[in-house]
Amino acid sequence: MHSIESIASTAAAAAPLFASTPPHDRAHALVAVADALLAAADELVALAQLETGLAEPRLRGELKRTAVQLRLFADVTADGAYLDARIDRPDADFVLGPRPDVRRTLMPRGPVLNFAGSNFPFAFSVAGGDTAAALAAGCPVIVKAHPGHPRLSDATHRVVVEALNDAGMPAGTFQIVHGQDEGVALLNDDRIRAASFTGSVRAGRFLADIAASRPRPIPFFGELGSVNPVYALPSAFTAPTDAASLAAGFATSVSNSAGQLCTKPGFLFVPTTALNDVAAAVATAVASVPEHRLLSPQIAAGFATRRDATIGAAGVSTVVPGSLRTSDDGEVWVTPTILSTDVAALEAGGDALLDESFGPLSIVVGYTDVAQLATLAERLFPGNLTSTVYASASDDSAPLTNLVTVLSETSGRVLFGGWPTGVSVTPAMHHGGPWPATTCDNGTSVGTAAITRFLRGVAWQDAPQHVLPPQLRDDNPWNVPQSIASAGESAQWGTAV
Amino acid sequence: MHSIESIASTAAAAAPLFASTPPHDRAHALVAVADALLAAADELVALAQLETGLAEPRLRGELKRTAVQLRLFADVTADGAYLDARIDRPDADFVLGPRPDVRRTLMPRGPVLNFAGSNFPFAFSVAGGDTAAALAAGCPVIVKAHPGHPRLSDATHRVVVEALNDAGMPAGTFQIVHGQDEGVALLNDDRIRAASFTGSVRAGRFLADIAASRPRPIPFFGELGSVNPVYALPSAFTAPTDAASLAAGFATSVSNSAGQLCTKPGFLFVPTTALNDVAAAVATAVASVPEHRLLSPQIAAGFATRRDATIGAAGVSTVVPGSLRTSDDGEVWVTPTILSTDVAALEAGGDALLDESFGPLSIVVGYTDVAQLATLAERLFPGNLTSTVYASASDDSAPLTNLVTVLSETSGRVLFGGWPTGVSVTPAMHHGGPWPATTCDNGTSVGTAAITRFLRGVAWQDAPQHVLPPQLRDDNPWNVPQSIASAGESAQWGTAV
Repeated sequence: MHSIESIASTAAAAAPLFASTPPHDRAHALVAVADALLAAADELVALAQLETGLAEPRLRGELKRTAVQLRLFADVTADGAYLDARIDRPDADFVLGPRPDVRRTLMPRGPVLNFAGSNFPFAFSVAGGDTAAALAAGCPVIVKAHPGHPRLSDATHRVVVEALNDAGMPAGTFQIVHGQDEGVALLNDDRIRAASFTGSVRAGRFLADIAASRPRPIPFFGELGSVNPVYALPSAFTAPTDAASLAAGFATSVSNSAGQLCTKPGFLFVPTTALNDVAAAVATAVASVPEHRLLSPQIAAGFATRRDATIGAAGVSTVVPGSLRTSDDGEVWVTPTILSTDVAALEAGGDALLDESFGPLSIVVGYTDVAQLATLAERLFPGNLTSTVYASASDDSAPLTNLVTVLSETSGRVLFGGWPTGVSVTPAMHHGGPWPATTCDNGTSVGTAAITRFLRGVAWQDAPQHVLPPQLRDDNPWNVPQSIASAGESAQWGTAV
Repeated sequence: MHSIESIASTAAAAAPLFASTPPHDRAHALVAVADALLAAADELVALAQLETGLAEPRLRGELKRTAVQLRLFADVTADGAYLDARIDRPDADFVLGPRPDVRRTLMPRGPVLNFAGSNFPFAFSVAGGDTAAALAAGCPVIVKAHPGHPRLSDATHRVVVEALNDAGMPAGTFQIVHGQDEGVALLNDDRIRAASFTGSVRAGRFLADIAASRPRPIPFFGELGSVNPVYALPSAFTAPTDAASLAAGFATSVSNSAGQLCTKPGFLFVPTTALNDVAAAVATAVASVPEHRLLSPQIAAGFATRRDATIGAAGVSTVVPGSLRTSDDGEVWVTPTILSTDVAALEAGGDALLDESFGPLSIVVGYTDVAQLATLAERLFPGNLTSTVYASASDDSAPLTNLVTVLSETSGRVLFGGWPTGVSVTPAMHHGGPWPATTCDNGTSVGTAAITRFLRGVAWQDAPQHVLPPQLRDDNPWNVPQSIASAGESAQWGTAV
């Protein structure tokens, strides 16, 4: 284990070297990392199973997703549009007097500290999305490993470093550190220029406050808590089988990976008239869900506390009690807990009911007045990664329209049908949202826009060609998109709107 | 004067209405505001002269600049590229399993609180760049007026509100508030979703810490302090007249508007061999600079303190003492103070020498080893709005290259020749930089990229066309650029890099 000082100084020394690597070279390196991870799948998945208790098919799928993320960012880097290269030609007739040659691009921020998550030991951990985005941007990365899977973290780190080295990336581009004190020490180090995090609201707030209170504050992109409410409108119940199919999808989304997903639906709103049907169907669907191990004793303890508080809250009925069992070796195994309540009890319940339960627990809420849903959503759920609407495709009623407006203001992603778990890794994905979903409601940790978190704007004025970054040169050696404003345009500003 | 509660609730009520105005309508409204400000020029400029002491030509030019900014943002809004509309078509053969229809765009954050600056009573005040960018984004704006020009602020507010009303924008889109306590109360109000600021490091840090420590933190885009060092390399001195022309430009840039500009050059580095020539020429150029009134007694007091500390620092020589004179009516009038020192004294002087002097004071620094400039810049000037290099156009020496790399890492804009004051209002401009130049080193408060500060990403999954924001619809009613990923593309990710 290297000292914090040596890790920070190594990252700082690597920063200008890595920043100046051509995008195509970084893209090749990212693809090489993806290939190396897949080649090491047997070793890595076995370690992940041992340390997390997640099922092998899920882990193999997650590793593949991790490789796909890296390949997607390789394309982003190679394309070069992310550099946002802009060239304003000098203009002697500029409307406010002669204008110089001004060129602007996005440059890498420098060393990024990435606090890995526990629940996606590949996709949100050592070589996960934040790492892929930061490396794609040209920033050296230091991963603070999650204590839930230390051996996997070290093995992944080894695979990544070897692939980066073989691809010719500078030494020190990718490092790992273990331990909360070590993470906090680095977060306080002036050489660290941005941080990312996936985890709890409590830990995320603790770290975000450190980042904001440094002598030189840095951006902190934390993905924290979300309860992902699902609103089934009356128009969603037109066929006799609608309640059952809704219940089946809900049960699967709550149960998979033992509900240890940031997008697990924590609330399902249904009309009171449908509540009994939905609850009965959920009970049937959940009855066949086998026991699943929780990720760690810490998560198990947190889940048990939240589950007790929720079950014991006034006005809450138990649909399926679920189970918690501690094995001889101290692992905690669970089956899903499904509860039900009504809007009045939910509002009266406060945080005991509204806070995230990280694990397989969800609450079905009966409502009587669909017109109330919009104000209810605004009041109770001010910040979520996702919100989901079930309605008929032709529903254009005021309650739906008003609800959707509120959901777009309070969520990072609004779904119509489907389930929020299983985030698709696609260019347009947004995995973010207002506080407490994230610390910084303009970032996303999935999708190609994630790269911008690790970039900063710099303008160059009247610079000779040979000192300009390649993406701003007239000969455009990297062949990236350049947005060019010609002389004379300014006289037309605002005339054609 | 309305209560804080009524101002916040009015802005919150206006937010969804203003957010849903078509971009072309907002663009028309911005042009109408620009035209209305110019039509009111005589009244506004007279008030500005009275309250700030700035010269009429400067103020008329600044008002024109303010109108141009609004017109530029009208074009940005009407064009719609700022919406970053992305559409990923559903894909049954997606590499990680079937992919839904995912569409992402940037949406307005909601009410923005804009703390106006004092030194640009038009361009960085009530109807200034931050207001233009936030309105263009579709966010209601509350301006916290600067106490240095309250009557001008109210008059400007009146002109803007009338123009917005006449253009059909929702009531409550634009409001004003006076008083520090009122500004702080609004900054703490949960209905405010972002804030911008132009002012001192001390006030900016105070407000940034409030924004970061709210129960729900918000982004705070503060433009704070900058000393804008200028580095004249040996290669800049090839003709006998070089020292004199450098000195003349420097004197003008330090003196204009009594140096009360965030981009005023606070340091000019010259080779020791050229120091005497440059200092003599600066003294000559500055000798003819007339007295200029400082903006306010507060700024005058701050300037006097900084000037005394700087003059009194060890190793500092006075080139031109300058003057401060308090008139009978309490206004403070100044002429420029020019000092000189060497690198060793500068390094030993610490904050007494390195902090910004907001006013007409600058220090000429003699250096002996050009190869030291890069490390010196990195150590002494970690965050600036601008850094400027003077060198021959063909200079590609290692000292120049190393210096430029450091300047791009520590500055928002790197100039080659010219002077940092007189920021050009062009699409590619970047007016930002690492702390303490700004609180948030990815924002700019000049140039078209400024709009992104007031936007947040939202994704829509499998949404019916009639609930999608217009920019994401297949029929694209606003005719904005849409980036579309077709089915089948994912199999190619990373293969062509």
